[in-house]
Amino acid sequence: MTAAPGLIKKGDAESFDRAALEALLTKRFFFAPSFEIYGGVAGLYDYGPTGNALLQNLVQHWRQHFVIEENMLEVDCSIMTPADVLKTSGHVDKFSDYMVRDSKDPGSIFRADHLVEAVLEARLKGDAIARAQESHGSLADKIDDLSVNDKKNKKKAGKKAPGEVEPKRLDDAVIEEYKNILAQIDNYDGKGLAALITKYDIRNPETGNPVTEPVEFNLMFSSSIGPTGQLQGYLRPETAQGQFLNFGRLLDFNNNKLPFASAMVGRAFRNEISPRSGLLRVREFTMAEIEHFVDPEKKDHPRFNEVKHLVLPFLDKGTQTSGSTEPTLISIEQAVASGTVANQTLGYFIGRIYLYLVAVGINPNRLRFRQHLQNEMAHYACDCWDAEIHTSYGWIECVGCADRSAYDLTVHSKRTKQDLSVSENLREPRIYDKWVVEINKKKFGPQFKKDAKVVTDYLESRTECELEDLAAKMAANGGSATFIVPDGREFTVNGDLVEIKKVTVKEHIRKYTPNVIEPSFGIGRILYSLLEHSYYTRPEDVQRGVMGFSPLVAPFKCLVLPLSNHTSFESPLLEIARQLRRLGVPARIDDSASASIGRRYARNDELGTPFAITVDFQTVDDGTVTLRERDSTKQIRGPRDEIILLVKQLVDGVISWDNATTKYPLVNTATSDDERD
Amino acid sequence: MTAAPGLIKKGDAESFDRAALEALLTKRFFFAPSFEIYGGVAGLYDYGPTGNALLQNLVQHWRQHFVIEENMLEVDCSIMTPADVLKTSGHVDKFSDYMVRDSKDPGSIFRADHLVEAVLEARLKGDAIARAQESHGSLADKIDDLSVNDKKNKKKAGKKAPGEVEPKRLDDAVIEEYKNILAQIDNYDGKGLAALITKYDIRNPETGNPVTEPVEFNLMFSSSIGPTGQLQGYLRPETAQGQFLNFGRLLDFNNNKLPFASAMVGRAFRNEISPRSGLLRVREFTMAEIEHFVDPEKKDHPRFNEVKHLVLPFLDKGTQTSGSTEPTLISIEQAVASGTVANQTLGYFIGRIYLYLVAVGINPNRLRFRQHLQNEMAHYACDCWDAEIHTSYGWIECVGCADRSAYDLTVHSKRTKQDLSVSENLREPRIYDKWVVEINKKKFGPQFKKDAKVVTDYLESRTECELEDLAAKMAANGGSATFIVPDGREFTVNGDLVEIKKVTVKEHIRKYTPNVIEPSFGIGRILYSLLEHSYYTRPEDVQRGVMGFSPLVAPFKCLVLPLSNHTSFESPLLEIARQLRRLGVPARIDDSASASIGRRYARNDELGTPFAITVDFQTVDDGTVTLRERDSTKQIRGPRDEIILLVKQLVDGVISWDNATTKYPLVNTATSDDERD
Repeated sequence: MTAAPGLIKKGDAESFDRAALEALLTKRFFFAPSFEIYGGVAGLYDYGPTGNALLQNLVQHWRQHFVIEENMLEVDCSIMTPADVLKTSGHVDKFSDYMVRDSKDPGSIFRADHLVEAVLEARLKGDAIARAQESHGSLADKIDDLSVNDKKNKKKAGKKAPGEVEPKRLDDAVIEEYKNILAQIDNYDGKGLAALITKYDIRNPETGNPVTEPVEFNLMFSSSIGPTGQLQGYLRPETAQGQFLNFGRLLDFNNNKLPFASAMVGRAFRNEISPRSGLLRVREFTMAEIEHFVDPEKKDHPRFNEVKHLVLPFLDKGTQTSGSTEPTLISIEQAVASGTVANQTLGYFIGRIYLYLVAVGINPNRLRFRQHLQNEMAHYACDCWDAEIHTSYGWIECVGCADRSAYDLTVHSKRTKQDLSVSENLREPRIYDKWVVEINKKKFGPQFKKDAKVVTDYLESRTECELEDLAAKMAANGGSATFIVPDGREFTVNGDLVEIKKVTVKEHIRKYTPNVIEPSFGIGRILYSLLEHSYYTRPEDVQRGVMGFSPLVAPFKCLVLPLSNHTSFESPLLEIARQLRRLGVPARIDDSASASIGRRYARNDELGTPFAITVDFQTVDDGTVTLRERDSTKQIRGPRDEIILLVKQLVDGVISWDNATTKYPLVNTATSDDERD
Repeated sequence: MTAAPGLIKKGDAESFDRAALEALLTKRFFFAPSFEIYGGVAGLYDYGPTGNALLQNLVQHWRQHFVIEENMLEVDCSIMTPADVLKTSGHVDKFSDYMVRDSKDPGSIFRADHLVEAVLEARLKGDAIARAQESHGSLADKIDDLSVNDKKNKKKAGKKAPGEVEPKRLDDAVIEEYKNILAQIDNYDGKGLAALITKYDIRNPETGNPVTEPVEFNLMFSSSIGPTGQLQGYLRPETAQGQFLNFGRLLDFNNNKLPFASAMVGRAFRNEISPRSGLLRVREFTMAEIEHFVDPEKKDHPRFNEVKHLVLPFLDKGTQTSGSTEPTLISIEQAVASGTVANQTLGYFIGRIYLYLVAVGINPNRLRFRQHLQNEMAHYACDCWDAEIHTSYGWIECVGCADRSAYDLTVHSKRTKQDLSVSENLREPRIYDKWVVEINKKKFGPQFKKDAKVVTDYLESRTECELEDLAAKMAANGGSATFIVPDGREFTVNGDLVEIKKVTVKEHIRKYTPNVIEPSFGIGRILYSLLEHSYYTRPEDVQRGVMGFSPLVAPFKCLVLPLSNHTSFESPLLEIARQLRRLGVPARIDDSASASIGRRYARNDELGTPFAITVDFQTVDDGTVTLRERDSTKQIRGPRDEIILLVKQLVDGVISWDNATTKYPLVNTATSDDERD
């Protein structure tokens, strides 16, 4: 599809008007608060016909791009999950955020990191305004203009609005401190956040009251299963666990061959502390997750060549902890070769994620891959990269891509005593060195008494790296080492009790627990980002928005409309719509008598409908119809049945609009599109 | 697709072997208990790659058949629902089943109606065996042979198995009584079930102990929303409510025109008391629901002509209450004309449901439409028909199709004070008689004091029918009438306080609350029925099942396999699979070196893969491949690229297999399919 260059500022961050987009999204029912007539519930949204069709098309292309093209094993698992499973996965203990309350208004609850972020960002903005006011008055207005919401809030007289910014100059050193904190805000735990709140006097911006100490709040929705109420369950917070639990059956289904990937598209739930930002932070959402099971020693990927040339913006953790958010533009091949990205498979999926996002319409210039910081990363992960998309809310994590190592299969296997490993017969026996721990059981019992099992379990479940560390510690510490077991108690061992050493092993069968590379997509976040990136206005009609969706994802593919209310148009209209629908092309009739044809084109521009077939008097005469393309607003004319098939081909991407205009004559647009009112 | 007649007994009830099907479904991972390695949870299942693809294809065709072809407004609403909404809809108070416990083993819980049904059916079976034994010994064996599960249970020595049947003759009159009860088992409420349990001495079949009185158990999963835990929520028990709540926005989206239909596909939850019967009674399931909003005075349907000729088996409520389960074969047109089906729109959807089910592969000879009995039907519904599919578990309700009248919009509108009605400007004023209630407020207050509002509200919220009844009651009762208000208290009014009368009204604007016709699909139940109807074995290999899915729903459309393990086959194999996948055709490679080609064909017959492309030595020579069709096991040969496009056309239903065999030469099957081992 073509568009006159310069006319369309689709996905342009600078000129973007969020309030105008939001008005369009509400008017055209892309989405709305769930239970709206009951007052709504924060963090719950319903997709209307437009938003839902967009959502389904994103999912549909995801299935084509990943499941079908990469031959993944898609499964569909239960949402209701017994507590035992999520205890093992770590979610019962660790899937939480820190929350604080207003010290005088306990009903006012904030997510601690979001509060710190919001307050520091407001102070930085206030500083920018103050500095601008000092030097050039006009610049201050300009900055103020950009923050539409703030302006709107200021209009409300009386009490201070949440987003209101006070112009106040900060010291240069303080600015640096703030920026440094914000660059690694995800790196702070509860204690860290508490320290920030105290040091920078973070308060509830609405009341000015101090806030309480951060406390952990588990984000899972809890319920109970069965008539006795004795089996506790949670709504799954991600779709991953069902895939891990079915690993054995999936391996069998794949004729016991590795690597393979499972996939799932489904609903997940997070009881967010204080959901804001529309679709970006919600309590119920559609995820699409892939679990790629791979031999830990073979993390190369057979199709790596297909994506390695892609040059992408990588923002690694080193850059972030140095306080910068400037990504490096390098090829995936370079990123893997330099160790920035841990392995080929991770690199391959980063490339595939990029291709998917760009194919559905995300602006590639507003997309980056950010590496997780140490504290941000789940404790088991080796490496994790987020595909972040830039929106008016800032950079938004939309896809995570983590190397979860062998964590998941290991913990579930231990808990259930089910073997979730893979055996490989070796042609040549494998000889290698390995760290092992030997416990002197005779002395161990008397020394630790009833705690002997706890200490033994702890030592025997250490990874090789941990054993190596422990051995080094003992060597450095006169043969003794102190450690903390999971229940929090501290124990000390010495060389009499425990020997940690490197031994040489000879194996004929190699048995290993597969590692998991997990690309995980938040479909709702991608959808919202796509809405921002697709929205534009035409210079000749800045009041009306256009959603510039590609035919691949557009909610409705073709509008069918009569030139006027004339009765002779009715029958061809219905017949065209029916034929399109039979071909699987979602078509929408707009025969509202009261609106001019220009107005009806404009209305469907707001729905992002890429094509429109118009029935006019010539149709009744000679059976031809016109076909309009949304972005160029150009029209061609051709026989009805041919145009219907052409639309099917345009929608399927078999033919381009440019190509179509060479086959059928362009209609003088002066007679059509400027009938807009 | 053709098949030698008589060879295939697909969907044949008599020769069906459930145990063999179940073994196949488990082996080929159609589905498995969720959290299986943790011991599983009753009523929760995961779909594996095969079952999930089948599920997605059923949903995909549902969208094409209903949403796209009928231009419905598909939405996607939240699962987590605040209690207030479900209190209004009636689910908090009424969405329950009756449960009983074993009197000596309170952990043994049954759904009361299922227990009565199971016990009476077992007694009838015992009677049949006893009678058969008396007359012809051989027949008894035959009856016994049919019940595979019972036989299996009998083999376990010792304690009595749940399904075990005791041969015992019953009186003819008792048999009639039992059959009569079973024909209307859904018609009994808690008291009715209690009476049956006492009268027929229904006990826990496993222990022989009596059971407790039936008590109601609400089937919704409960949770709480937000960090304060104060907002109670339930997991939606159906997808309908979200559609009702969005009625206003949907009407606006549809340019304020009626009728229109909304639709939703999504997960719903029911905390079943004692889920059994595999996929047929589960706690979490995918539904697809349509809410067709219509003017209560215009329940005809513009496309009724397209389905009215269909002759279907209708089992109406009169037939059932007379104790029979024999449906009447009449056309939809006759069913509507005779009043058997309440209106055209209901009839239209019954026809469309039939066409959908048959298109995806349900055997039309094992499909019937059963009308709900009075007590079974929700209290607001005017008429309700279930599409029931026959399986080895009996007749299973798979689709409900109800006329819900104006109930839903009325209750939500009342509760929220939001107007959910439609206004129509009348060309001619409308003059009609109407029952109204007039309350003498002066006397009412002193008479009822603080209860005046309760009584007023009760009287003013009566329907016209109820007012007419009340007026008749007052007339018959010397001018006074007694009634019970929702909180259970009884009040009496007389003519001094209240006048109920018929008045003549003249209206220029007609304001009405739309009625709702609701077709509601249990996708999992349709899927399971389809599995039974698709399963067959070939006479030459009765040990191996074949899943005879149509290409429309088959999980994998095309198998790609090498004749042998020869390395020259590898590259064309991968290239063919890749080309198919690019075309959106889910293709599966089976290159397991250890299995013969016949075995690999058979393995994919179990997956229901309709087509198979084989790469052999001739492929390497001249670039041709063979294409095998599953049911006929016949093969044709053609150039690789042509065959790939042919598969795409076969899968899309653009060309038939018969047609394909006229274009490409048949290969002598002696060299291919009998290589099966």
